[in-house]
Amino acid sequence: MPVAPTRGRLRPLGLDEVTITSGFWARRRHINTTATLGHCHDWMERVGWIGNFRAAAEGRLPKDRRGREFADSDVYKLLEAMAWERGPDAGAALDTITDAIAPVQEPDGYLNTAFGRPGQGPRYGDLEWGHELYCYGHMIQAGVAQTRARGEGALAKIARRAADHVCATFGPGGIEGVCGHPQIETALVELARATGEQRYLGQAALFVDRRGRGTLADPEFGRAYYQDDMPVREATILRGHAVRALYLAAGAVDVAVETGDDDLLAAVVRQWEATVARRTYLTGGMGSHHRDEAFGDDFVLPPDRAYSETCAGVASVMLCWRLLLATGEPRFADLAERTLFNVVAASPSEDGRSFFYANTLHRRRRGTVPPAGTDSPRAESSLRAPWFAVSCCPTNVARTLAVLPAYLATTDDHGIQLHQYTDMDIATQGVALQVRTDYPSGGRVTVGISSSPGHSWTLSLRVPAWTEGTTAWLTEPDGTRRAVAPGTAEVTRRFRPGDEIRLELPVTPRWIAPDPRVDAIRGTLAVQRGPLVHCAESVDLPTGHEVDAVRVDRSAEPVDGPQGTVVVQGELITSDQARDTPWPYRPLDGPTEPPTDGPDEPATPTTAERTGITLVPYHSWANRGPSTMRVWLPTTEPPVSPPAG
Amino acid sequence: MPVAPTRGRLRPLGLDEVTITSGFWARRRHINTTATLGHCHDWMERVGWIGNFRAAAEGRLPKDRRGREFADSDVYKLLEAMAWERGPDAGAALDTITDAIAPVQEPDGYLNTAFGRPGQGPRYGDLEWGHELYCYGHMIQAGVAQTRARGEGALAKIARRAADHVCATFGPGGIEGVCGHPQIETALVELARATGEQRYLGQAALFVDRRGRGTLADPEFGRAYYQDDMPVREATILRGHAVRALYLAAGAVDVAVETGDDDLLAAVVRQWEATVARRTYLTGGMGSHHRDEAFGDDFVLPPDRAYSETCAGVASVMLCWRLLLATGEPRFADLAERTLFNVVAASPSEDGRSFFYANTLHRRRRGTVPPAGTDSPRAESSLRAPWFAVSCCPTNVARTLAVLPAYLATTDDHGIQLHQYTDMDIATQGVALQVRTDYPSGGRVTVGISSSPGHSWTLSLRVPAWTEGTTAWLTEPDGTRRAVAPGTAEVTRRFRPGDEIRLELPVTPRWIAPDPRVDAIRGTLAVQRGPLVHCAESVDLPTGHEVDAVRVDRSAEPVDGPQGTVVVQGELITSDQARDTPWPYRPLDGPTEPPTDGPDEPATPTTAERTGITLVPYHSWANRGPSTMRVWLPTTEPPVSPPAG
Repeated sequence: MPVAPTRGRLRPLGLDEVTITSGFWARRRHINTTATLGHCHDWMERVGWIGNFRAAAEGRLPKDRRGREFADSDVYKLLEAMAWERGPDAGAALDTITDAIAPVQEPDGYLNTAFGRPGQGPRYGDLEWGHELYCYGHMIQAGVAQTRARGEGALAKIARRAADHVCATFGPGGIEGVCGHPQIETALVELARATGEQRYLGQAALFVDRRGRGTLADPEFGRAYYQDDMPVREATILRGHAVRALYLAAGAVDVAVETGDDDLLAAVVRQWEATVARRTYLTGGMGSHHRDEAFGDDFVLPPDRAYSETCAGVASVMLCWRLLLATGEPRFADLAERTLFNVVAASPSEDGRSFFYANTLHRRRRGTVPPAGTDSPRAESSLRAPWFAVSCCPTNVARTLAVLPAYLATTDDHGIQLHQYTDMDIATQGVALQVRTDYPSGGRVTVGISSSPGHSWTLSLRVPAWTEGTTAWLTEPDGTRRAVAPGTAEVTRRFRPGDEIRLELPVTPRWIAPDPRVDAIRGTLAVQRGPLVHCAESVDLPTGHEVDAVRVDRSAEPVDGPQGTVVVQGELITSDQARDTPWPYRPLDGPTEPPTDGPDEPATPTTAERTGITLVPYHSWANRGPSTMRVWLPTTEPPVSPPAG
Repeated sequence: MPVAPTRGRLRPLGLDEVTITSGFWARRRHINTTATLGHCHDWMERVGWIGNFRAAAEGRLPKDRRGREFADSDVYKLLEAMAWERGPDAGAALDTITDAIAPVQEPDGYLNTAFGRPGQGPRYGDLEWGHELYCYGHMIQAGVAQTRARGEGALAKIARRAADHVCATFGPGGIEGVCGHPQIETALVELARATGEQRYLGQAALFVDRRGRGTLADPEFGRAYYQDDMPVREATILRGHAVRALYLAAGAVDVAVETGDDDLLAAVVRQWEATVARRTYLTGGMGSHHRDEAFGDDFVLPPDRAYSETCAGVASVMLCWRLLLATGEPRFADLAERTLFNVVAASPSEDGRSFFYANTLHRRRRGTVPPAGTDSPRAESSLRAPWFAVSCCPTNVARTLAVLPAYLATTDDHGIQLHQYTDMDIATQGVALQVRTDYPSGGRVTVGISSSPGHSWTLSLRVPAWTEGTTAWLTEPDGTRRAVAPGTAEVTRRFRPGDEIRLELPVTPRWIAPDPRVDAIRGTLAVQRGPLVHCAESVDLPTGHEVDAVRVDRSAEPVDGPQGTVVVQGELITSDQARDTPWPYRPLDGPTEPPTDGPDEPATPTTAERTGITLVPYHSWANRGPSTMRVWLPTTEPPVSPPAG
């Protein structure tokens, strides 16, 4: 398991206790195993990021260094994925790469291919942008994964020596600094949990406490960019670079849980609440600025400029999981579910060999497929690309999918809690149960008990928040059927083998309307079906139409279409609504016909065909060639009268 | 005059022919002369950008170099402003700074403080980002200004030597490259016009032709960033970095006009049309990306993330002026007017000592005043700041205001054309006339003829496009009054001293509605009064309200308020509309009351006070302390039913 707190409301289950057997996530994980891991490994050889370690060992640095200053971290993220993966091929690859890394570690534990050699910057001379501690963080997480999934090996030993070096260098009396990119905090806590060594926890707590006191330089984006603008426990909302903010929050939860610091935990919960209420996309995506990959101001959530980085989705799931374990509150699993289905699952292509870096909610222009074998600029990733100049996302998806079974269910002293639904077998504490479902396509979840201890215990099932306003049903083993409200449904009894519990979740498609304060989507609606956000994609429209021609009729309920699609009623605007007008702003009392180029040109009447419009799950878009796409669809009743003309 | 074409439909007038006597622009120019020029000079000494030249002369480079690689260019822009300014103080300062620059020019004409010395990058080793030709461009424009306004002096000679060096280095057989930042093109054409030396024109034409052929590296933002993605004459719309795109387009017009290249001119006109129709803010502002300071895709015009750089406004006015001279079409003066009043005039504070870099149309958070004496990050300029780390905007405003009289009127073989309205005296070709008006506060423009040749000629007056849907009136010297349509109104006669022509423009405030394709402002309206865009600013709301509480009633016409303000009817939303909800997206058929924190908490009813809301001219906002502001105001009829709660 990736997170193993010693305290908290719930206890996680490990990969040996939860097995995903089939369904949505099984398919994703199969592709991850058979395609994505090898794809990332190949690319990292091709672009020389693994080669950096060989070059270091052979004294060819800095001349032969490739990639950005944080390239080491992507190698470590791949190793973490390989460690969780547990198959022999992944293990062999892990060992090979580890063999390349080991000789680069210096006698005092320092390990980085970008700093410290003649011709390179000095160690820790650029805490703002050097990412040295960030790289250790991913290395340590990989080491912990190895220890837990495969038993402590060479990688774990390297990680521990690096962590010792960090404590010696940045501990009391050492450098009074923090890394520009948080990540080491959560890694050090996990290493403390895995090893029992409390120094690592102390160092993590020190890093969390030091952050926000202005030890880093004031960059062009402001110190909020790396959360050095105010102490963690004083902040009221997440801000700055989204991945940095979320990793830091996850680390702060880890520290709070292990040290019993309830004030710190409460501070992060408050920040999470405010961020979800005001700075999160319908998909669960976070971060609306391309410029600094950052959260915008409250309610600045433009769909067409959504950054919603894949890694921010991964980081949000990490934070949600930690908050769920600490508090037991289902709202954290709700956001994790939304983010897993609509951000994390949206990033990789169907073949697992290309990825979204940014996850826009509105694509106005058909993209172009990157030339084979080239890496892509990160922010232009409006078509999935095989690799990026900064390529944090593919390996982040890979490590998340590799350990996904450990994010689905928990135990406590009373029983077992199911937080996410997919076909899976769980075996823990004398209980064996099988979850069978076609979720999220269908809403029926059946839990079969095949083994149970003799005493009474409680099976808890999350009833997703998205069922609000409809009715979900729970059927107990004795056939009793009752409506269950969003939150947690519980069945407590002395279960027997053969007992079956059924949860029926109403995955009928529904219109979703935004808070009017999200200015950028005023006058539009989206469709959600179960946990899945849907979108219009141009490949499903009549030839020649792009998604911006769609207007939807809010008075007609969306209905299920074939193969997991949804069909809504609406219009496709054609003719002069699509024509240029000389100036796109017109007096309200002015002429409604567009000025024509010449006095004799007849005004083309506006025509709109009434039609059904197919919406596909957002995570599946852009798998059928270049297309335009949008999640938030304008309604047929224009909010302001003059037509486009 | 800044632009003196040898061909084209209209001929510009010079600073000795047009004098602004009082009114809106006279006040702005007075502040420019008495405050802004000195402010820029002081700051450029403080941050060491003038000192770079002294350091170069004294052999202290690169050690003592300050500022970014293009810092020289801001010194040149200040010199251009000082040259146009023509007062003795400005002249003395110009000479002093020129004395510092002169010794830095190398024997072959090369001049740059950032390249070419031991420890610096080699000359022209980084055409993408080095800005060497860009710096020459501004130097040459300053030299031309000196020649025209004060007579050729030392600066003009330096510029000419630099231009000779450019021709020798980048001409046929030389480096087959272009500069990452266009600017040299228009400067070289102007130098050709000022000196009669056709080599400079040929070099400019060569640079325009070379652009778009991929000679520059493919950067993270793509080659469109510096318009190296396709040849100028093949492009259909402006794209990439807005200032770069607009400077290049201006240079292409200059080349097209001087070489009689009608195809090239037509290509730029097409690009301008498409850009104005699809990629321009109501203010005339251009550029909706913070990340790469670039144009967005069509209709991507988020008000809260508007970049709308001040320099892009200046560049747009430069392009409009050139297109107006070439074609005589009033639409180019229309956009110039809009941009001058709502972008260029918005940048400087009332005291002329702080500036907007970006000109957002929606500010949601009160800004903080930068600490005295510090420069500011450019994109955080949501409050005006005295100086920026990249400080192109203050000097760009200064040079534009210094030469503004030359952008107002023209002549041709038939008479005189008035394109912009302010109190001004014009004396040219035997005609003396006086324009008197309180425009843009009032709409009455009176043109008095005090001297006229004996023959008949035509006085042309632009009737702004913003009068569309209302009626403007023209009164001829004989008292005849007639309605005039948007475009050009002409009076042809043998004018006599004492003749008076009156234009009445209906500057009543009007609601403006956006094209529905501008998704980010669906369901909102703005107010324009004459050429002025208005906005709500929190300092005009009852205490405790921010602008996002405003909802306007579109059924009530906006009316004039005191002192140039406009008053609209609307509501200020309070209570639970302003409260956080746990999640800002809700099923359309779901409960309309927000979930409360606990079951016993009563739902706070939504209340909205009906009230008049004062809107101030956009250019004047943020002169009364930190505030929130928005141009596009949601209407009281919510476009989609569920309330914010």
